[in-house]
Amino acid sequence: QQVFQPDEHQHIRYNPLKAEWVLVSPHRCKRPWSGQVEKPAEEEVPPHDPNNPLCPGNTRPNGKVNPNYESTYVFTNDFPALLEEAPPVPKSDNPLFQCAPALGTCRVMCFHPRSDITLPLMTLDEVTKVVERWIAESIELGLKYRWVQVFENKGAIMGCSNPHPHCQIWASSFLPNEPRVKDHYQRQYLAKHGRPLLRDYLDQELQKKVPQLAASVTAPERLVCENASFVALVPYWAVWPFELLVLPRRHVLRMADLTADEQRLLADIVRQVTTRYDNLFRCNFPYSMGWHGAPTGEAMSEDCQHWVFHGIYLPPLLRSAAVKKFMVGYEMLAQAQRDLTPEQAAQRLRDCSPVHYKLEQ
Amino acid sequence: QQVFQPDEHQHIRYNPLKAEWVLVSPHRCKRPWSGQVEKPAEEEVPPHDPNNPLCPGNTRPNGKVNPNYESTYVFTNDFPALLEEAPPVPKSDNPLFQCAPALGTCRVMCFHPRSDITLPLMTLDEVTKVVERWIAESIELGLKYRWVQVFENKGAIMGCSNPHPHCQIWASSFLPNEPRVKDHYQRQYLAKHGRPLLRDYLDQELQKKVPQLAASVTAPERLVCENASFVALVPYWAVWPFELLVLPRRHVLRMADLTADEQRLLADIVRQVTTRYDNLFRCNFPYSMGWHGAPTGEAMSEDCQHWVFHGIYLPPLLRSAAVKKFMVGYEMLAQAQRDLTPEQAAQRLRDCSPVHYKLEQ
Ligand SMILES: O=P(O)(O)O[C@H]1O[C@H](CO)[C@@H](O)[C@H](O)[C@H]1O
Ligand SMILES: O=P(O)(O)O[C@H]1O[C@H](CO)[C@@H](O)[C@H](O)[C@H]1O
Repeated sequence: QQVFQPDEHQHIRYNPLKAEWVLVSPHRCKRPWSGQVEKPAEEEVPPHDPNNPLCPGNTRPNGKVNPNYESTYVFTNDFPALLEEAPPVPKSDNPLFQCAPALGTCRVMCFHPRSDITLPLMTLDEVTKVVERWIAESIELGLKYRWVQVFENKGAIMGCSNPHPHCQIWASSFLPNEPRVKDHYQRQYLAKHGRPLLRDYLDQELQKKVPQLAASVTAPERLVCENASFVALVPYWAVWPFELLVLPRRHVLRMADLTADEQRLLADIVRQVTTRYDNLFRCNFPYSMGWHGAPTGEAMSEDCQHWVFHGIYLPPLLRSAAVKKFMVGYEMLAQAQRDLTPEQAAQRLRDCSPVHYKLEQ
Repeated sequence: QQVFQPDEHQHIRYNPLKAEWVLVSPHRCKRPWSGQVEKPAEEEVPPHDPNNPLCPGNTRPNGKVNPNYESTYVFTNDFPALLEEAPPVPKSDNPLFQCAPALGTCRVMCFHPRSDITLPLMTLDEVTKVVERWIAESIELGLKYRWVQVFENKGAIMGCSNPHPHCQIWASSFLPNEPRVKDHYQRQYLAKHGRPLLRDYLDQELQKKVPQLAASVTAPERLVCENASFVALVPYWAVWPFELLVLPRRHVLRMADLTADEQRLLADIVRQVTTRYDNLFRCNFPYSMGWHGAPTGEAMSEDCQHWVFHGIYLPPLLRSAAVKKFMVGYEMLAQAQRDLTPEQAAQRLRDCSPVHYKLEQ
């Protein structure tokens, strides 16, 4: 009988944040691919496009004019999925037809006045400005709303309709599914083990860096990059091929709790992660990413010690700039499945240069 | 103050099968779209392609030769995500690094010898053969495995690498996430209400067809098509724009429990659904779909009365044959969001002709 090798043999892994499993099938990377290939991302983006509604000084479809902004710029989405007001929803006591109110707002945040730049190509000062603005928006919206979701859809493949570097901020009166589930399991873990789940998790991942452990089968390396305040790793339960989790070394509940130094180090880790991503397939690497922390609004006065602020990167590419992982039939109807192990993905990302390929001389 | 209109005003709806919410933002359909458009599906598929590994008589990449099959044809996937054997997985008592065994098999099932045909263009007899084969495979694999997932990825947009009409059947030793969660909430509902969740749900949807109820705001129509044994409807909690749920009128636990007449009627409803789908945007409509019923294997001797056999269609298109709904940033990190109500989607599908556009003379 063969000995189990996690990098060779199929198995399922558990995500303790969501109580979900992922099927890991490392042998599957051997299959040939004859399916859809993606168009390479548009490389020729002009620095300023007079027709792009996100550029400084341009008029948006609703007639509003952007200022000549020089750093970040935030405005309310012209077609928001969440509006600040809506008529009250009648209560229903039928368990099968439950409907509830949803109030909120959706903002768009430009990272930089130029369209032909991306986070890894921006300076540390510029990305720090982005972090500061994320925090300012989160604080302001968090006064009123229970959840403020900062997220970035990057690349046409991720439904991003505009190449200008930007993200979105959707605030809602309700706690959405993903953070609600994570809230539940983090709370349960703290009650049972006396420490926040993601604190324990990071400690154990860092311990596994100890050389003698790293050599053993059960302790492979999942770390990708780090600095004095943050660690980026492929989580043990990663679903997307090159998924990353960004964790603070200190117990921080919300992005707004970061010190000025830590904000700069968060900008640094964002640049490190996106640089390695771009270098992996030498392309403008698409992803959806976002930040999760303790809920806000009324939750600001509740006990949220079970929460740990963290970032999540969910990139779709699998084999090359043109071949993505499709999360379809089996994944939608049964369970997520991945074709390379988190450890293999981490190794690939560690092997990438920390210098962006466009900045090599 | 305005009165709440579910077709006008944003709200969230609850999926009692999964304890998840969906954000419904009907006003959002007004936004312009300048994002990625999909290539139209290849319309010129030859009936037989000597290089297509799914066609009768052809040699597959692994050297095996397909028989000259004349109806359905099933073989084990040459690059399966699940293998029947793997070394035993060592037990872990660390709650953050849980790994468990996964055994199974993956089969491919061709629906028809011709590549240039799809389910709505096949005859009722031919689709009935497909249903019979789904059942035969589910029974055989269900003897050994706890879960048998029959699913179809249709279209390049759904990661389907081959235009030949086919589906897949993945059997596993474990109950995957989706059915595990549905098992839990169906069990809970039966214990609390004394009836299976999806039986109650269908009854209430059918009652809402009563004209006086249908006129009221809280009882809109979600039914799309039906026959003597099955109903296809857009569920109240639908996530994908034109998602459909297929339910049996009788309490059936598993597809294998269908009588010969019902099997034919299941084939009929499959043809009805896929015909309306193709007619919606006059294209070869892409989707992922699959069947869920009570678990198998050892669960065959357990009490599964809380289960109701059902089919799920998850199609990605939103506005046209070329514009899909992207389930990205907010959806991945926070909560699913939809731009038209389930009732509006049902109306659109009801308005489609029951005769396939390619069969009109
Ligand atoms: O086996 P196929 O059709 O090549 O692969 C497709 O369906 C599988 C099951 O949903 C997915 O895991 C793959 O990502 C997808 O490309
Ligand atoms: O607002 P955008 O960027 O046009 O829209 C994009 O992101 C949204 C939030 O993840 C999604 O709901 C849309 O499907 C997607 O196309």
